[in-house]
Amino acid sequence: MSQTQNPNQAPRTAILLIDCPDQRGIVAAVADFLSRHQANILHADQHQDAERDLFLMRVEWDLEGFTLDLDEFPRRFAAVADRFNMRWKLERSDKPLRVALFCSQHLHCLVDLLYRHHSGELACEIPLIVANHDDGRRWAEFYNIPFHLIPVEPGKKPAAEKKQLALLEEHNIDLVVLARYMQVVSPDFVARYPRRIINVHHSFLPAFIGARPYHRAFERGVKLIGATSHYVTDELDEGPIIEQDVVRISHRDNLADLLEKGRDLEKIVLSRGLRWHLNHRVLVYDRKTVVFD
Amino acid sequence: MSQTQNPNQAPRTAILLIDCPDQRGIVAAVADFLSRHQANILHADQHQDAERDLFLMRVEWDLEGFTLDLDEFPRRFAAVADRFNMRWKLERSDKPLRVALFCSQHLHCLVDLLYRHHSGELACEIPLIVANHDDGRRWAEFYNIPFHLIPVEPGKKPAAEKKQLALLEEHNIDLVVLARYMQVVSPDFVARYPRRIINVHHSFLPAFIGARPYHRAFERGVKLIGATSHYVTDELDEGPIIEQDVVRISHRDNLADLLEKGRDLEKIVLSRGLRWHLNHRVLVYDRKTVVFD
Amino acid sequence: MSQTQNPNQAPRTAILLIDCPDQRGIVAAVADFLSRHQANILHADQHQDAERDLFLMRVEWDLEGFTLDLDEFPRRFAAVADRFNMRWKLERSDKPLRVALFCSQHLHCLVDLLYRHHSGELACEIPLIVANHDDGRRWAEFYNIPFHLIPVEPGKKPAAEKKQLALLEEHNIDLVVLARYMQVVSPDFVARYPRRIINVHHSFLPAFIGARPYHRAFERGVKLIGATSHYVTDELDEGPIIEQDVVRISHRDNLADLLEKGRDLEKIVLSRGLRWHLNHRVLVYDRKTVVFD
Amino acid sequence: MSQTQNPNQAPRTAILLIDCPDQRGIVAAVADFLSRHQANILHADQHQDAERDLFLMRVEWDLEGFTLDLDEFPRRFAAVADRFNMRWKLERSDKPLRVALFCSQHLHCLVDLLYRHHSGELACEIPLIVANHDDGRRWAEFYNIPFHLIPVEPGKKPAAEKKQLALLEEHNIDLVVLARYMQVVSPDFVARYPRRIINVHHSFLPAFIGARPYHRAFERGVKLIGATSHYVTDELDEGPIIEQDVVRISHRDNLADLLEKGRDLEKIVLSRGLRWHLNHRVLVYDRKTVVFD
Repeated sequence: MSQTQNPNQAPRTAILLIDCPDQRGIVAAVADFLSRHQANILHADQHQDAERDLFLMRVEWDLEGFTLDLDEFPRRFAAVADRFNMRWKLERSDKPLRVALFCSQHLHCLVDLLYRHHSGELACEIPLIVANHDDGRRWAEFYNIPFHLIPVEPGKKPAAEKKQLALLEEHNIDLVVLARYMQVVSPDFVARYPRRIINVHHSFLPAFIGARPYHRAFERGVKLIGATSHYVTDELDEGPIIEQDVVRISHRDNLADLLEKGRDLEKIVLSRGLRWHLNHRVLVYDRKTVVFD
Repeated sequence: MSQTQNPNQAPRTAILLIDCPDQRGIVAAVADFLSRHQANILHADQHQDAERDLFLMRVEWDLEGFTLDLDEFPRRFAAVADRFNMRWKLERSDKPLRVALFCSQHLHCLVDLLYRHHSGELACEIPLIVANHDDGRRWAEFYNIPFHLIPVEPGKKPAAEKKQLALLEEHNIDLVVLARYMQVVSPDFVARYPRRIINVHHSFLPAFIGARPYHRAFERGVKLIGATSHYVTDELDEGPIIEQDVVRISHRDNLADLLEKGRDLEKIVLSRGLRWHLNHRVLVYDRKTVVFD
Repeated sequence: MSQTQNPNQAPRTAILLIDCPDQRGIVAAVADFLSRHQANILHADQHQDAERDLFLMRVEWDLEGFTLDLDEFPRRFAAVADRFNMRWKLERSDKPLRVALFCSQHLHCLVDLLYRHHSGELACEIPLIVANHDDGRRWAEFYNIPFHLIPVEPGKKPAAEKKQLALLEEHNIDLVVLARYMQVVSPDFVARYPRRIINVHHSFLPAFIGARPYHRAFERGVKLIGATSHYVTDELDEGPIIEQDVVRISHRDNLADLLEKGRDLEKIVLSRGLRWHLNHRVLVYDRKTVVFD
Repeated sequence: MSQTQNPNQAPRTAILLIDCPDQRGIVAAVADFLSRHQANILHADQHQDAERDLFLMRVEWDLEGFTLDLDEFPRRFAAVADRFNMRWKLERSDKPLRVALFCSQHLHCLVDLLYRHHSGELACEIPLIVANHDDGRRWAEFYNIPFHLIPVEPGKKPAAEKKQLALLEEHNIDLVVLARYMQVVSPDFVARYPRRIINVHHSFLPAFIGARPYHRAFERGVKLIGATSHYVTDELDEGPIIEQDVVRISHRDNLADLLEKGRDLEKIVLSRGLRWHLNHRVLVYDRKTVVFD
């Protein structure tokens, strides 16, 4: 999207995300509403899930020339929303999400995300980094992002998470990214950020759920290894998948080679998943995602 | 799409394809028109090409419950079409395209397409096969498809093409598929079937345009080989690309290995390109395609 | 390999496959033995598994000019083999393996293999096809391969397998290929053809072991689907993996699309795995394979 | 390779690289030579190019227990080398190559390589960075690598290259990596580092040779974009290819998306190509490479 490339030239846009029971006339009603206020639609995508009788929609339009004040939008759109029993959300490209990065000792994802952010690939603010090990501090300082070390001692996770949650609240965080953060977050934590925590798992889920996936892939003798970015839910590695990718391996690859090839996969699936989330392209229902590209 | 799997259960659908200058209100006008006739929209996709100020749209709806007689459609839709200066086309899932397959001596694509058609993967009719060599006749007979041998002798291509075109006309052919047909078709032939001839080229275009691409790929020492399906235009291998794919090779692969790996690519990119065309998912503008998936 | 392309021109070769405890001097001893008999080595590959202290080797040489009668090989090579405690096998390109294809009602893999065999891609003999449904008979007849219908009625699998095994024995079958054969073969059957039964599983193992993998992949919302060819062992879908591949899917793909995309994967991973086995490129140890390409 | 992961635990190894006319007995002679000095061979790979009658070999062995002083190696190996008319080279894992990184204003490859080096993925020394723009200085300083700004003014490239070459000589540089360095290096420069300059080109060569490949890919409407790492020769983008990779794009991707997806490809093909070179896995002949993995 050009807006991430040339933020100055990018159009200011609004993004409307909708889900509701599938029925006739939804598109016409939404398009008509926007048209009446002179919206110049840039992207419109929809998806029906026939089994669940569910309709999902994303519309993005240029705010230049749009005649409705966005503060007025909820009140004015209510008639349409009510008629079709919609859940909906309005996002704005000029109000980037506020993201907290969590990391531990494997820093390749953190370092990768920090440079992508610096170079304009990620349309978000990163007010803080939270870590249970100090290793990432140097990069945080280099990129001028406050670094908070909160060790998680055995048996004392609740206390640590309390500190983490206080920080997130204080900084108005919209999204938590676990950039190879090596702690399982508790259900309480998840409940505070439903569908707003993105994790990267170093396997092609649902293969090798849990610990040491590369070791188990190596033992099993698979011919491809993978990585997965997904939203975190209460069940370990069972949350809605955003992106996956794989790379070919052979008997010539030892375990260290798998770890090395895997790091490149992890960086790519996490950064793609994050970018799509930031652009409000990911809609979740049940355990699945729709990614409007 | 389920209709190709279970043709009996698949909904009868109509597909509307539109291109016009980009402007506000198009989606609303189309959606409103369909909504007024109780269309149950199954898929709606659109694309803007900002540089060319072009808007492209594909809408597919269930004909069950649609209150407008399709024979009436052109007259009734004219007001919308005129207002936005649209070029448009209406297709119907119950009127499958009629496809002619052209082949020579390399039969892997032909044999592959015939089985796919037999098993219901390709929603089309195949009234005839045209060939300049007799090798494919056995498979044609096995699948009960008339096989026309029209040799193309040096210097006598115009006469051969005249016979081919007569056959195509006689059988009301909508689309010609060059399934590794080893003759360049003339501009006159192309002019009769603009954007309605699909070819498979055995390279990753625009690399290795022209003859013997695998030999040249082998000489060049590339690390991936590819194949491309595209519409045929007057310029050799320069037509709009529908699909491409690649496979990894190494120094261990000799030329025969490249040919073998290439055959699998050719089958896949040609059958994908054909399937998308048959489902009216491919829109062409300039030298590019939009493939609504 | 050129021999599969131009069988007449291909060199007659011998292939020596070795595994033994890893130790110094193996390569030198083997190379010296072959060199003393004027072997023109075409391919030599080796692999060490450090954890298991295991050495694996494959050497292929041109029989043109080789001064040792192959019937004499075992007696003469014994000294080398004993010294390093080798298990070894000698194969010959002019003695192609004899393969039985098993199928049921999903015929895409069968039809694909039959054409590959016909066109010279698979260097083997196929003396028979065994099926528990009659659907494949037409293609068997077209390619002039005897077709044996052996229904497997509930509770009567032992009787059916007895007939199958009698056929395999009668026809001196070296390898059984389960081309989407929809029956689990019994441990007794497996014991008769250890590491000589190749199956294709329609998922990226170890994800979605067992029944209906595409349905479960669809439910889980994965972003890639896969297929796996592997040797059959007593544990369902746990045998050594020969080849795997994946293809990208999205929320736009319904279950029928997954099945369709999956068929292309299945054809490719099964035919690759079979080709490598036929060229004696696959060595098995524990639950893993080494594929010398 | 485990040595790049755990440098302390990795074995000290020697790597012998050979090319010579193909003939019988080479492997036996080399293996025998190494065996007589108690070499524990870790990897042995060979390749024949039948057309060119060429034999290429790479052997790596553990120096633990090897009874020949490496300083003595050339004199002692001469008899074998002379007999087969070999060109050969001996490399040692404990003598890492010295690499100069060249960059301009697009820094993603530079920043990527610096972190990989920092984390132990790249077994080399990086004594200096050379740039014609100052943008990369901050990262150079962060990783404590001297940064030399040598602007290349129009018409004054010879003077700039003279400074560059003086630096390379002073620092005993073995390999130059053009990490998106946006200047064409002169034939004189190339002649000083034959097959020792690695470049990344942002297309799938030989498609889109020269300037602005993503723009041209976008115009052409390809469905995949690629990147290529290759050795630099006198002919622009015609040098031996080390690695290539591609990523799928669609009509939904605008030019900025292509640039963004391309950056990930560039980082990966350049870092892979570099790693293989550092591990002495790449052999070049004519315009092709053999990459022993």
